Amino acid sequence: MPYIARWGIIATGWISEQFFVDLLVDPASRGVTDIVHKPVAVASRSLAKATKFIADHGKGIDGVRAYGSYADLVADPDVDIVYVGTPHSSHYEVSLQALKAGKHVLCEKILTINAAQARHLADYAKSHDLFIMEAVWTRFFPLSLELRKKLHDENAIGAIRRVTADVGFVAVPDIKSRLYDPFLAGGALFDVGVYPMAWIQMICYHHPENKKSPPSMIKSSMVKSRLTGVDESTVITMVWDELHIISVSTCSIVVDSPKDCAIRVQGDRGEVIIPSPTYRPVKFTIRIYGSEGKEDDVKTYDFPIPGPMGFFWEADAVARDIRDGKIVDDNYSIEESVSLMERFDQVRQENGLKYPAEIEFVGESDGIA
Amino acid sequence: MPYIARWGIIATGWISEQFFVDLLVDPASRGVTDIVHKPVAVASRSLAKATKFIADHGKGIDGVRAYGSYADLVADPDVDIVYVGTPHSSHYEVSLQALKAGKHVLCEKILTINAAQARHLADYAKSHDLFIMEAVWTRFFPLSLELRKKLHDENAIGAIRRVTADVGFVAVPDIKSRLYDPFLAGGALFDVGVYPMAWIQMICYHHPENKKSPPSMIKSSMVKSRLTGVDESTVITMVWDELHIISVSTCSIVVDSPKDCAIRVQGDRGEVIIPSPTYRPVKFTIRIYGSEGKEDDVKTYDFPIPGPMGFFWEADAVARDIRDGKIVDDNYSIEESVSLMERFDQVRQENGLKYPAEIEFVGESDGIA
Repeated sequence: MPYIARWGIIATGWISEQFFVDLLVDPASRGVTDIVHKPVAVASRSLAKATKFIADHGKGIDGVRAYGSYADLVADPDVDIVYVGTPHSSHYEVSLQALKAGKHVLCEKILTINAAQARHLADYAKSHDLFIMEAVWTRFFPLSLELRKKLHDENAIGAIRRVTADVGFVAVPDIKSRLYDPFLAGGALFDVGVYPMAWIQMICYHHPENKKSPPSMIKSSMVKSRLTGVDESTVITMVWDELHIISVSTCSIVVDSPKDCAIRVQGDRGEVIIPSPTYRPVKFTIRIYGSEGKEDDVKTYDFPIPGPMGFFWEADAVARDIRDGKIVDDNYSIEESVSLMERFDQVRQENGLKYPAEIEFVGESDGIA
Repeated sequence: MPYIARWGIIATGWISEQFFVDLLVDPASRGVTDIVHKPVAVASRSLAKATKFIADHGKGIDGVRAYGSYADLVADPDVDIVYVGTPHSSHYEVSLQALKAGKHVLCEKILTINAAQARHLADYAKSHDLFIMEAVWTRFFPLSLELRKKLHDENAIGAIRRVTADVGFVAVPDIKSRLYDPFLAGGALFDVGVYPMAWIQMICYHHPENKKSPPSMIKSSMVKSRLTGVDESTVITMVWDELHIISVSTCSIVVDSPKDCAIRVQGDRGEVIIPSPTYRPVKFTIRIYGSEGKEDDVKTYDFPIPGPMGFFWEADAVARDIRDGKIVDDNYSIEESVSLMERFDQVRQENGLKYPAEIEFVGESDGIA
């Protein structure tokens, strides 16, 4: 019998839509038979929106309840796992609210605004035996797992020496847009900066020879919007002493990722190239350098995504963790999220990127109803 | 009547060979009729080497004198301009020696080991009405001049937002190699780091809207060799506040430059891509992004180099400067070199890259005979 994961979806924006639709994809289409995903509730701060969300996206399924408050959803005894798809600025409060109601949590990236908030969530979950994970879906793609195998187990390109990873897109500069709004923690770093960092973490931090050491050095630079002061482009360079690797992570909301080579992993025998979009790549290429007079050996590996987006792989992992009584995911632990938030704190401090105190607070709040 | 530039070549290593051979290319082959280059002397610390150099490379030309000491060459009244092709660590002493003998100087990059040495050379030359320039040949390519025209005068890709530039190659790690020797100022930064920096300077520093402002921020990271402590890979990120541009300059002696996109200039209407080698590129591609439903417009511009290497374009510029009584080149002033050396000082300090005191000194020395 497959395990049935019963999901409650909080917020009805674009990302929740994508996640919801992905939950409904038949797991067999991706070769999964041990898990079934069952959305049981959707909450918005407007009941009408929740109802419309279910009507629009829940065709063919029954019994999904609509709630006009997050509090009502987290109180629903049928919900095992709460998916938090609110804007960044309320991830902390909403996740905490769900944990306090005794629910497991999958919270969209970026997990929180600062490391103190992330630490609070991690500690609360741990002390209450609850699961929590930041929804960095890309880490759960078969492509990502296969790349790690090739790089780490098969040593496909020899010793890795440099990793460059980029995620960027062109946003319309608009003071009213979420991406430009400091109150919603807008900017490149918090919107997409987690992706190049995720690749570098997968490749360097999780490298067996790194023994889960943090980078020995981190330096960062930003160009900030003249409109609202959020970061338009950010560059984070890290040195991994144990591995002798330098990594460069770039993100932007004013320039697109290079289509052809958004991620490049360079080793002493060859390189790996991943075209954009690096939040949802569908192939990678391994080039093994030819020796004197010999051609390079170039192979491309395709990983088609059997569904609209591909959020389901992380959903599968979360469901299995909960089925198995785990409160921390092996692939992406909440401790790793906390440590990334510490680095983002450092990057923001180094570059004077401040968000309003309202979204930086830690501790109890009145909650978001 | 063309102006005849009479060159004295100091040192007989690889770079001097290339420069010498390029001097002998008929200027008409590159459309130049106002300049003739005439090598009149070659010096090595070994007379035999200088003699052999002339025999090997000076076929078909007469009257090139061989010297067994640099002092003898700089004392030769027939020499107008001294080309310094010694290892980095002696650029300062040898250039100073040439200036003191009243000669104009074209010194290979990297100009000196630190900014104090560069400043000393610049000040000495200025106060003695002598020309001096760092031989960053790439800046004088027709390709470089055309790119600057397209970016700055024709606004080809709109407002520039991000520049990434790389030069790297794979050196054999060897304690005896020049590249790994701290006494010869080995390492990536000093061997090739000047090239990505040169592109970023051309694109950002020389941008008309920048009004020759220095970058508002500079951050750097290095991975150092476990063999000798010189830098294997270096990343320098700069922010150009006036322009609202972020630039990332990377260099390495352990990984090759990406063949297809070693330099990428991203603007809000399109991008420029320059394949490697970026010290000697022969083409660039301009991609203008298509609007909704329209294809990108992609054009490649070819700039074949009519000769073995292409050092002659900088030689032409130097000859014209001297003919015209200029002591500073318009395209690449000695002041810009000094300011780059200040940044390299900062990069080295930030990353604890030290060279032996013997090569860091400033002031009088016994000279190098």
